[in-house]
Amino acid sequence: MATTGEDSLPGLNVMHLFCGVDTSADKAAIRSAIMGAEGDGCQVISIAMLGHKADLGVLALSNSVERLRLLQTDLTRAGCVVTYSYISLTEISEYSGGVPEAMKMARLRPTLPPDGLSAFCFYPMSKRRLEQDNWFRLSYEERLRLMMEHGVSGRKFRGRVLQLVTGSTGLDDYEWGVTLFARTLDDLKDCVYQMRFDEASARYADFGVFLTGIVKSTDDVLDMIGSH
Amino acid sequence: MATTGEDSLPGLNVMHLFCGVDTSADKAAIRSAIMGAEGDGCQVISIAMLGHKADLGVLALSNSVERLRLLQTDLTRAGCVVTYSYISLTEISEYSGGVPEAMKMARLRPTLPPDGLSAFCFYPMSKRRLEQDNWFRLSYEERLRLMMEHGVSGRKFRGRVLQLVTGSTGLDDYEWGVTLFARTLDDLKDCVYQMRFDEASARYADFGVFLTGIVKSTDDVLDMIGSH
Amino acid sequence: MATTGEDSLPGLNVMHLFCGVDTSADKAAIRSAIMGAEGDGCQVISIAMLGHKADLGVLALSNSVERLRLLQTDLTRAGCVVTYSYISLTEISEYSGGVPEAMKMARLRPTLPPDGLSAFCFYPMSKRRLEQDNWFRLSYEERLRLMMEHGVSGRKFRGRVLQLVTGSTGLDDYEWGVTLFARTLDDLKDCVYQMRFDEASARYADFGVFLTGIVKSTDDVLDMIGSH
Amino acid sequence: MATTGEDSLPGLNVMHLFCGVDTSADKAAIRSAIMGAEGDGCQVISIAMLGHKADLGVLALSNSVERLRLLQTDLTRAGCVVTYSYISLTEISEYSGGVPEAMKMARLRPTLPPDGLSAFCFYPMSKRRLEQDNWFRLSYEERLRLMMEHGVSGRKFRGRVLQLVTGSTGLDDYEWGVTLFARTLDDLKDCVYQMRFDEASARYADFGVFLTGIVKSTDDVLDMIGSH
Amino acid sequence: MATTGEDSLPGLNVMHLFCGVDTSADKAAIRSAIMGAEGDGCQVISIAMLGHKADLGVLALSNSVERLRLLQTDLTRAGCVVTYSYISLTEISEYSGGVPEAMKMARLRPTLPPDGLSAFCFYPMSKRRLEQDNWFRLSYEERLRLMMEHGVSGRKFRGRVLQLVTGSTGLDDYEWGVTLFARTLDDLKDCVYQMRFDEASARYADFGVFLTGIVKSTDDVLDMIGSH
Repeated sequence: MATTGEDSLPGLNVMHLFCGVDTSADKAAIRSAIMGAEGDGCQVISIAMLGHKADLGVLALSNSVERLRLLQTDLTRAGCVVTYSYISLTEISEYSGGVPEAMKMARLRPTLPPDGLSAFCFYPMSKRRLEQDNWFRLSYEERLRLMMEHGVSGRKFRGRVLQLVTGSTGLDDYEWGVTLFARTLDDLKDCVYQMRFDEASARYADFGVFLTGIVKSTDDVLDMIGSH
Repeated sequence: MATTGEDSLPGLNVMHLFCGVDTSADKAAIRSAIMGAEGDGCQVISIAMLGHKADLGVLALSNSVERLRLLQTDLTRAGCVVTYSYISLTEISEYSGGVPEAMKMARLRPTLPPDGLSAFCFYPMSKRRLEQDNWFRLSYEERLRLMMEHGVSGRKFRGRVLQLVTGSTGLDDYEWGVTLFARTLDDLKDCVYQMRFDEASARYADFGVFLTGIVKSTDDVLDMIGSH
Repeated sequence: MATTGEDSLPGLNVMHLFCGVDTSADKAAIRSAIMGAEGDGCQVISIAMLGHKADLGVLALSNSVERLRLLQTDLTRAGCVVTYSYISLTEISEYSGGVPEAMKMARLRPTLPPDGLSAFCFYPMSKRRLEQDNWFRLSYEERLRLMMEHGVSGRKFRGRVLQLVTGSTGLDDYEWGVTLFARTLDDLKDCVYQMRFDEASARYADFGVFLTGIVKSTDDVLDMIGSH
Repeated sequence: MATTGEDSLPGLNVMHLFCGVDTSADKAAIRSAIMGAEGDGCQVISIAMLGHKADLGVLALSNSVERLRLLQTDLTRAGCVVTYSYISLTEISEYSGGVPEAMKMARLRPTLPPDGLSAFCFYPMSKRRLEQDNWFRLSYEERLRLMMEHGVSGRKFRGRVLQLVTGSTGLDDYEWGVTLFARTLDDLKDCVYQMRFDEASARYADFGVFLTGIVKSTDDVLDMIGSH
Repeated sequence: MATTGEDSLPGLNVMHLFCGVDTSADKAAIRSAIMGAEGDGCQVISIAMLGHKADLGVLALSNSVERLRLLQTDLTRAGCVVTYSYISLTEISEYSGGVPEAMKMARLRPTLPPDGLSAFCFYPMSKRRLEQDNWFRLSYEERLRLMMEHGVSGRKFRGRVLQLVTGSTGLDDYEWGVTLFARTLDDLKDCVYQMRFDEASARYADFGVFLTGIVKSTDDVLDMIGSH
């Protein structure tokens, strides 16, 4: 959960778009907006969202932020109404010195969606700056200790839950975006619930909204959310 | 108020939908959206909501989250405007070790609505993580003690109020959704007011919005809220 | 400010509806919605609201919550757009042991609006649960002392301001709804300002929105807010 | 910043209305709504607002709150959409015992707008009730000392900034509305910035939204904001 | 981060407008609104925004606040819907006594946009007034020390990130608006992330929303966001 150095590969631009889609939206145009972005090298994941916050979720990664804006424009023109979004970058955490190079590269250049993990959630988070519990006033060593403890706790869900943490300090309202892919909603809930007892989370994390859905092919998502 | 283990039955997916419904909505289509979900094995409860937050409440439980999304799509197509929602799962609390198996199963696989308890309210809640009063930094023994005390206080309303607590950590903006069914609004108020003095609630609970209504048959609800 | 016991009369259901009303609303239909509710035994007070929060205020009390929902449905059908509302119950406070029976009954079964007090405001409130100042962790004796002190301070406005405190714990977003009727806005302001220095309010009260208006006959209100 | 006694003149009713005005609004009707209110003895100031919060600001003072409501109704009928508002009363502060009678009267019955001070801002504020820093638990003497210190600091801007503080405890969401008129936005900023270091503000003030604009004749305002 | 004295040049008026722009907007009219303002001596920067908060960003500086309001009116008439805005002034910080005159003038009269820095973000901020960590109760010397430390940390990004801090105390909801121009989103994120560990930020800063986009020519921006 930190930042890539000046001498490393830059992060990929990441755009989460959450849209209201009603029957006036143009299904063919949504599909070709997404296919067009994929044709230009973006990774795009489609999600059928649950509840009032959105119908369609689109998670797109690209080395071109302009191409991401064009995808947003195309989706809007197809009748999607963007109700929430998040702008962030893939990154290698400053706490991941001991992590193998292959794993670091998997964070900077992830391949999504992971096989068989179709339960999806996204939430933004910041580290707290309270009068006593202020993450940004801890020493690097203390922060490293807390993040490693948090990592141990997360690894218990390996294979059942995959986590993508992207950096957004200065780009969006929170400091990180957390995207989880899991086998089931039960696994999502177990994972986030267990990790909330870690000191890094219990004492030092503030969370924004949580958005939940199901990863599917774009066609299946559009069928499920009822666009024509 | 916790989480089902990996070796137990998974929780049911629970979707609370609260909708604005005006005279342009299609009553027959709302009815068949709900009947269709019931036909596919969902439990669906219809509620006539009070006040500006919503007209129609729909509480649906299913082992298929995709079927719940389809219900949402059908209701939206029938002209319902989803103004609030909550996504959660039935669960057996980590504090219910001493609870008989039949009661545990009643929590994981509840039969709703309870007879004669037509006063309804829903609210989401989280446990606090303040600098002093931080639930997630208490020991399991201390949390167990507080939850048992809270349970004693709740049991005084047995027969008059039935409580369904569903888990939503990682799925929605709070950690639990609380659904209450009672004989009257007076009983709802008495129960929540008395329990607020419990330490588990007074010191450690944060509440979201409260939504109140009346459980009825779908037809009666649609008549009461004035759709055609 | 508490709750009626199981052995006493139940509280009346209280619904505050605050509505936007523009020239497309049907004045005759609004009038007959209100008259219909009165014909069924509801007390209904009409208020011309000030500012952006609402045009029309409707305060209705009934022993039937279903009849209140029907009133909401009729008003909505007449073109009112409900922008804010509050659901509560009349109650006898747990601190009013020493209060004469006639006064208790006046709280449970109030006769509204009081003569000559046409300045109106409504606000919801809760008692604080801060780390130090936590109302729900005080002893009953301490709470009783604070409420009696608060009552002394309120009684200085007797005849100029009438207060109706209705309970909403578990029913709406705050724990109580406070409705004030006064001779003038000046009296409303003086009363609430003076009482804010009481410890019960200064240390222990959190307030929601404040809505202000003028009580009139329904016809006069509809004329003032400009519906046709 | 307090309240007029029972034996003094009542305050004037003050309504701040902030409206969105697009090209569908009727300029002639807006003008005659304002002229009509002036004809009935209201003081009305028109303001061209800056930014997304509003286009048209209308500040109106009257001894008749009903006449203010009628002005709101007329503006709404002319196509103004009220996006924010504030309801308050002119008052003589409880800390102004030593103030000359003429100045007290200028507060209760102000003549607006002041000549040559066309830069405008409005913000609501309350005094804090934190666990340590709780204004309403200070002695009168301590509050008086803090307010006099704050006044000294404000008087450095005499002639460049005029301040109108109106009371709203019990009437609107904050305890006071602050309206400033200044020569330029620079003077507005300097004044509020300097005064924020006063203990009365630094420790004890909470602020709501800030709305900024330019006082002009109604015709000039309507030209600037683009209504037809 | 402070205020220009009475004897120095006044600040320039700064208006950030963030707008939704759909296909009904008139591209030619937007272009001529911007060109008209430039013809009257305003500096105007166009930004293609990312995500749900806005499509078009317009940052305009002028010595005439009325000319800025006219630009807003022209953009609105062209079909832009202003969803967020910020009103502020260029200023020379009270902590910049030791800064060369040329640099001070560059702050009061900036030339924008900086060459080659097309990644854009804007966020408003205030200094905290918590019970312990209260910026406005620190001595000038302590604040100066913290700001100089913060400046050292910012200068590490010289050439990669340019910062424009404009003052808004009394004018908008926060005390300052921060506008950053950078080579890439990665540089924006690195800079804001690193500086968050400075005591001035970690202990004493509160942030509002963050809005991110890409600076381009007005024509290129309008093409990217899809207006006709």
